Amino acid sequence: MSVTAAKGFTAAGVNAGVKTADVRDVALVVNLGPIKNAAAVFTTNRCQANPVIWSRQVIADGQVEAVILNSGCANCYTGPEGFQATHATAERVAEKLGVSAGDVFVCSTGMIGTQLRLDNMLSGVDMAVAQLSNQGGLNAAEAIMTTDTVSKTAERVSPSGYTIGGMAKGAGMLAPGLATMLVVITTDAVVSSEDLDAALRGATRTTFDRLDSDGCMSTNDTVVIMASGASEVSPDANEFADLLADLSHELAMKLLADAEGSAHDIAIEVSNAASEADAVEVGRTIARNNLFKAAIYGQDPNWGRVLAAVGTTKAEFDPYDVDVEINGISVSRKGQPDQDRMLIDLKPRAVSVKVSLNAGGHSATIYTNDLTHAYVTENSEYPS
Amino acid sequence: MSVTAAKGFTAAGVNAGVKTADVRDVALVVNLGPIKNAAAVFTTNRCQANPVIWSRQVIADGQVEAVILNSGCANCYTGPEGFQATHATAERVAEKLGVSAGDVFVCSTGMIGTQLRLDNMLSGVDMAVAQLSNQGGLNAAEAIMTTDTVSKTAERVSPSGYTIGGMAKGAGMLAPGLATMLVVITTDAVVSSEDLDAALRGATRTTFDRLDSDGCMSTNDTVVIMASGASEVSPDANEFADLLADLSHELAMKLLADAEGSAHDIAIEVSNAASEADAVEVGRTIARNNLFKAAIYGQDPNWGRVLAAVGTTKAEFDPYDVDVEINGISVSRKGQPDQDRMLIDLKPRAVSVKVSLNAGGHSATIYTNDLTHAYVTENSEYPS
Repeated sequence: MSVTAAKGFTAAGVNAGVKTADVRDVALVVNLGPIKNAAAVFTTNRCQANPVIWSRQVIADGQVEAVILNSGCANCYTGPEGFQATHATAERVAEKLGVSAGDVFVCSTGMIGTQLRLDNMLSGVDMAVAQLSNQGGLNAAEAIMTTDTVSKTAERVSPSGYTIGGMAKGAGMLAPGLATMLVVITTDAVVSSEDLDAALRGATRTTFDRLDSDGCMSTNDTVVIMASGASEVSPDANEFADLLADLSHELAMKLLADAEGSAHDIAIEVSNAASEADAVEVGRTIARNNLFKAAIYGQDPNWGRVLAAVGTTKAEFDPYDVDVEINGISVSRKGQPDQDRMLIDLKPRAVSVKVSLNAGGHSATIYTNDLTHAYVTENSEYPS
Repeated sequence: MSVTAAKGFTAAGVNAGVKTADVRDVALVVNLGPIKNAAAVFTTNRCQANPVIWSRQVIADGQVEAVILNSGCANCYTGPEGFQATHATAERVAEKLGVSAGDVFVCSTGMIGTQLRLDNMLSGVDMAVAQLSNQGGLNAAEAIMTTDTVSKTAERVSPSGYTIGGMAKGAGMLAPGLATMLVVITTDAVVSSEDLDAALRGATRTTFDRLDSDGCMSTNDTVVIMASGASEVSPDANEFADLLADLSHELAMKLLADAEGSAHDIAIEVSNAASEADAVEVGRTIARNNLFKAAIYGQDPNWGRVLAAVGTTKAEFDPYDVDVEINGISVSRKGQPDQDRMLIDLKPRAVSVKVSLNAGGHSATIYTNDLTHAYVTENSEYPS
């Protein structure tokens, strides 16, 4: 299960007291090989956490021995003391596993601007190493949760005999960068670092990057993939890329379904755009419109707010030749009302918004959530 | 008071049944001259309401006889029938006043995608013309309210003997374009259409345009100014521009204070930026960050969310040389925590966030509100 579904990986998730709550908060995932190839994508936020700065160096040579993760502290904007804490964590993992600290990838998630409880973190490393197991994937997935209400994992087995498994956390600040949350993916396929990188960038571009729950981009977002080669199967590059994209989509949808305080999952499909970039821009702009998001929460099929959002973009379209459909009902065509909006049922959690720009042949789907009372409560009462 | 503070203007606000609620919903402001100079700025939303399309033509020659406004219907995305309704409204005003329909400026506000009740609108015009008075400014201000809880007016009297007065409405969808709400300003100064235009663009750029309550830009936003010349005073252009900017700032702050469901007015001052555009971009990005806005509502001085927002901009700055101050307390300097965030008192409605980019000598202040339960309630339960 999870990151230990693929052969050649052990993992653990322990309660180290990094969080004040009495829960698992440190996870470790170790690649036993024979190969140690890896790739990663990071947040595009220019304000980056110390573990991101560290891990960018680690991944430069495409080799990773282990990933150590903590919840309860983002270790961001914590100055030299914070960077030292990340470094010391990697050093402890390296020492315990007998590897180089330069091959230990570090991820943190939690509140910005507070220092990591380093003593607890280091004893957490010791505990995690002691508990490493090829059954440890679920505990690891649990240890990276923050406001998540459930842990998120996924697995895929290829008919050709290799496996991809992964775990993800993220319930707020789901927004675009290269990556949008903490995700660790493992595979026992034999894949070069270069092919892992290409497949991972392709997969994130159309899955994690299309998730825009609340428009806020984190300082810590990271998606990392490691290959052990333990299955001895060298997959076709396209087949591997497709399977990875499929698994990434499942993890992304699990993040969407658990987004902070959400009551609806909204798929915004923008079609007939002049370019894919136009389709993404229009979808993202709708996804970030608080008035539209609040209307969906209130089960009000307010298509005027969709068009008002579309009108703020630079995409190619004629404002009076845009069609809007909500849950299968065509509510506006060519600048005027079409079918009665009251025909739309917004009680189900899943909402489909389709916008046709009638300007070309490209399309993209952006996934978002509604703006709810529970979102306000979580983000006004929980410091993160 | 209001648009009738200046000499040479009459106004009225009547209950015409355009709204279903039993309140004033049609306003008329008439310029009696001797001059009929005018200027206007409109939303930059590409999806524009019929009255915006109409009034752009009206203002082209810099001459306006009257402004007719309605609440209760945006008359946007209503097709040819909607444009005909705007045209017919202007024609009725023109007929009743004995002027050209091409000099009748029209503004509408309310829900997108529903047709105007034209019969009610036209009888509203008749009623309004019958009630025109140089005391009618307050009734007119009341008639343009939507979710506003109070009407907004302001006046300035110049020592040189002329007056500027104005009324504004807008409680949601306060976001940047050229203009950001419905505002009618009148003056009895003798000012050319060109000078009115220059002064109005200057004033809106640093007042209404710096208001970003919820990041959503309306399809109907319009600010129009008319000069009657009735005071016979020809003001110095700079003095007039300054007085107009001062009045615009007062109206903008009144809009901010009454923004839908808000509990805090937040002034985000970005200083030491490489350019004014950088300062505006950074301020606006913070103003649109739902996590930051929810934190302020929860009285949580979460400066990490400020920096996470700054990091998503393209402005020139070193991520580890940005200083953040909230309500006078320096919470972060040079990439690490400074004073204890618990020193900050966020109970008062007014919140000051200061961000120094340490990259130049420019600055700008963006005004926004917090994200509250009441905002979600208003925008999920009230269709607009």
